[in-house]
Amino acid sequence: MKNCAHLLVASALLFVSAGVTAQDTVRFSPTVGYSTFAVRDPVLTVRPGTVLISQTNFGGYYTEEGGAFPGEVGPIYIEGATTNDMLVVRIHQVKPNHDLAAARLYATFGGLTQDKWVRSLNQPIEERRYVWRLNHERMTATTQLQGSAIQEIEIDLRPMLGRVAVAPRGEEAFGGLWPGDFGGNMDAVEITEGATVYLPIFHDGAYFYFGDGHARQGHGEVSGTGLETSMDVILEIDLIKGRTIDWPRIENEDYIMVAGSARPLMDAFRLAHVELVEWMEEYGFGRLDAYMLLGQVVESSVANVVDPNYTVVAKFPKRFLPASP
Amino acid sequence: MKNCAHLLVASALLFVSAGVTAQDTVRFSPTVGYSTFAVRDPVLTVRPGTVLISQTNFGGYYTEEGGAFPGEVGPIYIEGATTNDMLVVRIHQVKPNHDLAAARLYATFGGLTQDKWVRSLNQPIEERRYVWRLNHERMTATTQLQGSAIQEIEIDLRPMLGRVAVAPRGEEAFGGLWPGDFGGNMDAVEITEGATVYLPIFHDGAYFYFGDGHARQGHGEVSGTGLETSMDVILEIDLIKGRTIDWPRIENEDYIMVAGSARPLMDAFRLAHVELVEWMEEYGFGRLDAYMLLGQVVESSVANVVDPNYTVVAKFPKRFLPASP
Amino acid sequence: MKNCAHLLVASALLFVSAGVTAQDTVRFSPTVGYSTFAVRDPVLTVRPGTVLISQTNFGGYYTEEGGAFPGEVGPIYIEGATTNDMLVVRIHQVKPNHDLAAARLYATFGGLTQDKWVRSLNQPIEERRYVWRLNHERMTATTQLQGSAIQEIEIDLRPMLGRVAVAPRGEEAFGGLWPGDFGGNMDAVEITEGATVYLPIFHDGAYFYFGDGHARQGHGEVSGTGLETSMDVILEIDLIKGRTIDWPRIENEDYIMVAGSARPLMDAFRLAHVELVEWMEEYGFGRLDAYMLLGQVVESSVANVVDPNYTVVAKFPKRFLPASP
Amino acid sequence: MKNCAHLLVASALLFVSAGVTAQDTVRFSPTVGYSTFAVRDPVLTVRPGTVLISQTNFGGYYTEEGGAFPGEVGPIYIEGATTNDMLVVRIHQVKPNHDLAAARLYATFGGLTQDKWVRSLNQPIEERRYVWRLNHERMTATTQLQGSAIQEIEIDLRPMLGRVAVAPRGEEAFGGLWPGDFGGNMDAVEITEGATVYLPIFHDGAYFYFGDGHARQGHGEVSGTGLETSMDVILEIDLIKGRTIDWPRIENEDYIMVAGSARPLMDAFRLAHVELVEWMEEYGFGRLDAYMLLGQVVESSVANVVDPNYTVVAKFPKRFLPASP
Repeated sequence: MKNCAHLLVASALLFVSAGVTAQDTVRFSPTVGYSTFAVRDPVLTVRPGTVLISQTNFGGYYTEEGGAFPGEVGPIYIEGATTNDMLVVRIHQVKPNHDLAAARLYATFGGLTQDKWVRSLNQPIEERRYVWRLNHERMTATTQLQGSAIQEIEIDLRPMLGRVAVAPRGEEAFGGLWPGDFGGNMDAVEITEGATVYLPIFHDGAYFYFGDGHARQGHGEVSGTGLETSMDVILEIDLIKGRTIDWPRIENEDYIMVAGSARPLMDAFRLAHVELVEWMEEYGFGRLDAYMLLGQVVESSVANVVDPNYTVVAKFPKRFLPASP
Repeated sequence: MKNCAHLLVASALLFVSAGVTAQDTVRFSPTVGYSTFAVRDPVLTVRPGTVLISQTNFGGYYTEEGGAFPGEVGPIYIEGATTNDMLVVRIHQVKPNHDLAAARLYATFGGLTQDKWVRSLNQPIEERRYVWRLNHERMTATTQLQGSAIQEIEIDLRPMLGRVAVAPRGEEAFGGLWPGDFGGNMDAVEITEGATVYLPIFHDGAYFYFGDGHARQGHGEVSGTGLETSMDVILEIDLIKGRTIDWPRIENEDYIMVAGSARPLMDAFRLAHVELVEWMEEYGFGRLDAYMLLGQVVESSVANVVDPNYTVVAKFPKRFLPASP
Repeated sequence: MKNCAHLLVASALLFVSAGVTAQDTVRFSPTVGYSTFAVRDPVLTVRPGTVLISQTNFGGYYTEEGGAFPGEVGPIYIEGATTNDMLVVRIHQVKPNHDLAAARLYATFGGLTQDKWVRSLNQPIEERRYVWRLNHERMTATTQLQGSAIQEIEIDLRPMLGRVAVAPRGEEAFGGLWPGDFGGNMDAVEITEGATVYLPIFHDGAYFYFGDGHARQGHGEVSGTGLETSMDVILEIDLIKGRTIDWPRIENEDYIMVAGSARPLMDAFRLAHVELVEWMEEYGFGRLDAYMLLGQVVESSVANVVDPNYTVVAKFPKRFLPASP
Repeated sequence: MKNCAHLLVASALLFVSAGVTAQDTVRFSPTVGYSTFAVRDPVLTVRPGTVLISQTNFGGYYTEEGGAFPGEVGPIYIEGATTNDMLVVRIHQVKPNHDLAAARLYATFGGLTQDKWVRSLNQPIEERRYVWRLNHERMTATTQLQGSAIQEIEIDLRPMLGRVAVAPRGEEAFGGLWPGDFGGNMDAVEITEGATVYLPIFHDGAYFYFGDGHARQGHGEVSGTGLETSMDVILEIDLIKGRTIDWPRIENEDYIMVAGSARPLMDAFRLAHVELVEWMEEYGFGRLDAYMLLGQVVESSVANVVDPNYTVVAKFPKRFLPASP
């Protein structure tokens, strides 16, 4: 609510939701997964304000035996969404619904090794697969190590969604590994329960996609995967009419945030932070005042350093935003 | 203590401190500031285990009128320090001792603008200076904004030391803005009260320097400065004999950390995280197991994106380290 | 011929061309331009060995008044092309067929300014458009300068094709600005008369595209455009059966070359040079011998620093290749 | 001469040389080599306009057995040089004076491998050393390959100086591997006979250094070394009084050039090209006109991708400079 208040105050634009009285709740079980973010026939059409109870796709990747990565859920067509609006996705639940999660090391994909984009003459690393067993009550995961003094390790879970996206502009179609201004595979640990994601809209209907559950993931998803598994999700899908953004924004109780995706890492960093300055301008900060303030209080989270674009999340603490007038 | 235990366990090397019975306490008021990290005549010589009660240099930079940046305190010669050892600096206190702090915006220095290293054909930004008033009781700082809807902003303080260093290898001398494997201007918010910094030693005596207090600083020190002011410090200066490291390590109650400094940002990121893997190997993790684990639990902090080398801090939560045998 | 000999020698694979006796000559005038590289209904189907006499698309971009950029010509389906083969495009002619060429400066696109991917807080530059008049006999171009001591400048022409491509893998579709392993907007000055381009094939039929004539372009296409105009082209389209490559290769009388496209620039550089080492291995060089030799004789050409991926061309002089056995 | 004419024309500043009548010729045989660029006691003092007949230092690195790298020759104090002037070094001769040259592959230093700055978890490559035999009459070099189908390779020589430098600003001291705004280890193939190098001056006397002969080197010095050997040199050392530059400039018969050194590679590229635009402004080009022209005619040479800073040389063809008024 405070968010909305700020947005209303800052921009004097109308926040159009389906409203408390008319809010739809839709249960949807996906039967197909797509491997690109693109305009194609929707799997579902919803009205703004819809609460979607669904799950990410399940696939062999998440099993004991291993197998293919399941594609994304979507596209979901949002009625009334136009390129003059922004898409709002409030994440009410992201909860592992399977007993296993898989983490892998790849010879050609990873943040601390040569890979297919960061080539070198060094020999590639050995590939490995780790099956993690999830304990849903304790909210922990356990796996066997494969060359360590200790045999087993247990960590606590922090479930998140690697991918939320709209269809990118024009006829472009990006593979599921890509993050960009359309969202996509941002792999931001901040995209979790309690967060709201704002996405630009490049086509009427927005064509919303989601997927790639991580039971937990470190900053940068540095070894190439998180604890990959399927999730039950509850997403409230809404619009802010008459208002546009250039890059995905995220908001939670404590921060307003921008996710910038690019290579090199510094360009992702700059993108995220310059866009954050521009969001702060909507709150009444002067551009250079905002810049100087970031120097004192910004928190910068490296979301991924493995995908075709790297992602950085720039975070401004809401306690330093002006109080509503 | 737990740190020491781990180090002892991991390496079975002798932790040589001056010991409880013989610990020196030295009060030292600096009278000169140097602007390069280099071997030169020491301003002080101490024994390992010394508790140093001192302060960073004060200068016009921190005053209402502005002025030159004061140089670093040092070099301090540590008796018995050799290139086979590592330097240990336990930070017991970092506390602003002045009523003002200064933050500046530069036309030729900054993380979100073209500057002297990141050149472009765009016009440089306008330079600005912000004087912040410190409230030592509330531990807050207040400044006047210069083009915002709100006139004034107050933030809470988180004092830290921008610079801790040894003299770099050979006859090299790096200006005070430089971070590197010798430490230096890392600008890591983690270098604060309660943290221990481990530095490599390139010359007998180590030639320790410190300075550049920030009453608060955001990740990346993105606008070029933190809240620059002078500090009272209490530093315990010690050695770990017979043990060497390649890059600065930091440890606090919750994390073991490595600070990697390089350009581009991704190389700083890789440096820090590869060195962290190597620290984890000392705890008995296999190299690829450690890599995979980072994918799930590492926290990555961007320390600076403005200095001649950028700095990234890779952080592994200590709760996932093996219990002492 | 020498090229073919080397390839045959190096790989002992069959070079399958339509042959001297059966070579098709096809005249084709494009009527549609596409703005993504993707699988779609072909505009033309040809047999391997076909000599295609055609032209790039013409559009308002190239006129006195300015206007939209015309899309690419294609896709052309090559009969018998499979993902086990590579596509061969011999460039027999690239010749401006229009009296004007346009060069532009953009506020949001360019190599020496902040742009939409390399964001900063600096003000964007002023946009400009330069119409160049082409003299086809003298092979020169002349334009009026807009703020210089001299009023006019004349330069000699070096016509080239900015874009030659196949459809990228899977369902991906990249906008016309993109270069990648599928070729695309590489903007390499080496792609000119007398050069042969080899491209990987990701779909049966290859789906070949070409376009983006530059009457001349500097290294890096640093200001965002070359002398953009339409071209008459003669392209011999062929296959090498049973042989695959990962990245585009180029060959002319003097060099074997690889075009690597990625961001950051250093990753494009590494890609191109590592792939060149691998091409040298096909000639019998040991991997490390090849690496050491590059240190002495490689020539490295920066093709573009403005597109979504940057492109570097690594060039090994053919006079240092082993003579045919 | 044409250069001088342009400089005079462009800036209307006085070119002060010692003059034809008073030109000194000095023969100097170095007896010491230094491993940092820094202010220290000069090994020689000369007047502006002096023709220096000398050689680079010889060391074990260049012998059959291998050994240490010899340091640089210098510093040479230039009488009358101040920080308001620039240093001019005309290279009249760079000629190998030894029968061998050495090329090496390092596990921790190189452009296509992980190294000490570009860390990864991959295993380092095997180290190797190649002794090349020089034929001074044919101006060729021959070496034995160590794992290739052919046993031996011969290449032609193109002798150059890897390092020309002044002492860097203040008390900074950079190791011999460093290039920067002070010149240093730029490893530009353009620094060869017939070229003139212009360097900024940070201290009265300039403190000029030179060394690091390469009998030949590829673009980027990509494997870490060129054909390292000692050289006879004839250098004319001069001043342009009352005129300063920020980065090294190079000029030969065909090009005006700027050498920008930084990491990442793209920042070196931008530095060099933005400084070249500023040089073009001295010739009367408007800033944006110059930018647009670079898009059509600039040549960009990657000098090194292995040193602590990478170096790019931006080259503008002199035939497109305005004729003298």
